Amino acid sequence: MIKAALSVLLVLVAMSSTSGKYIPKSGKRIPQTLARGWGDQLIWAQTYEEALYWARSRNKPLMVLFHLEDCPHSQELKKVLSEDNMMQRMLDEDFIVLNLMYETTDKHLSPDGQYVPRIIFVDPAMTVRADIVGRYSNRMYAYEPADIKLLKSNMEKAKKLLKSEL
Amino acid sequence: MIKAALSVLLVLVAMSSTSGKYIPKSGKRIPQTLARGWGDQLIWAQTYEEALYWARSRNKPLMVLFHLEDCPHSQELKKVLSEDNMMQRMLDEDFIVLNLMYETTDKHLSPDGQYVPRIIFVDPAMTVRADIVGRYSNRMYAYEPADIKLLKSNMEKAKKLLKSEL
Repeated sequence: MIKAALSVLLVLVAMSSTSGKYIPKSGKRIPQTLARGWGDQLIWAQTYEEALYWARSRNKPLMVLFHLEDCPHSQELKKVLSEDNMMQRMLDEDFIVLNLMYETTDKHLSPDGQYVPRIIFVDPAMTVRADIVGRYSNRMYAYEPADIKLLKSNMEKAKKLLKSEL
Repeated sequence: MIKAALSVLLVLVAMSSTSGKYIPKSGKRIPQTLARGWGDQLIWAQTYEEALYWARSRNKPLMVLFHLEDCPHSQELKKVLSEDNMMQRMLDEDFIVLNLMYETTDKHLSPDGQYVPRIIFVDPAMTVRADIVGRYSNRMYAYEPADIKLLKSNMEKAKKLLKSEL
């Protein structure tokens, strides 16, 4: 009897694995977004290569946002940045955006080390704007939620391109 | 009268930009997923660096899938691969997965040129498995929907790691 029940169960398991959409054993997952909560309405580049290509071809500055999901400082900054409509509009209309949880091989993106959160601007002429810094001398590209005004003015700085094509 | 109406409009626009969630002028967008239709239930790496890190730390082979949204061959392969439950389960349980629309700076990922669709396996020992090829001598890493069986057997090949850590 138990054997028969087991057979039926096995058949059901086999059937469920060949019909319908694949569902992991651990249960259905919510598909990951490229935004990762930093602005669902923005068009995020997937990789640094892609972001550089977009920045160059559309002549817009790039904002690279390094963060970690288990870093409370990243999460706080994410909340403030994603809920600031003026900032979101500016990022959407005037910037190429990329958020990364892993470092790239390009050392220029970590002028004073690898830490999160860290915001680096890159000019469409491919120059990393190491001159656009935050408030902290030991972590020059870090921003806290209270620094959002400074971040906005840094975005304005980044919008003034190094070498205008006009 | 027109002036008054314009003022009201301006106020409304100003209000809408400061309250509620940011919505682009062109209308609300569907957030982009990392899966891009290649398997919503899989956990996709965002970048090659991330994928290599996962492959190494979890001792699993990496499958890199180069594709383009406006390439009909990519779209056909996507349909077949995303609807094949056995393949999706195998990718989910035994592989690290990465889909890319832009090339990386690593030349090893394009052993015979940059084209799409192109599937490259990378061993957790960081070696690109240039030996795991498809059916076409001029585009050795291309697969058509009819080649799905070959792709499966190639995945089995990739699962036999070059240098087991055991």
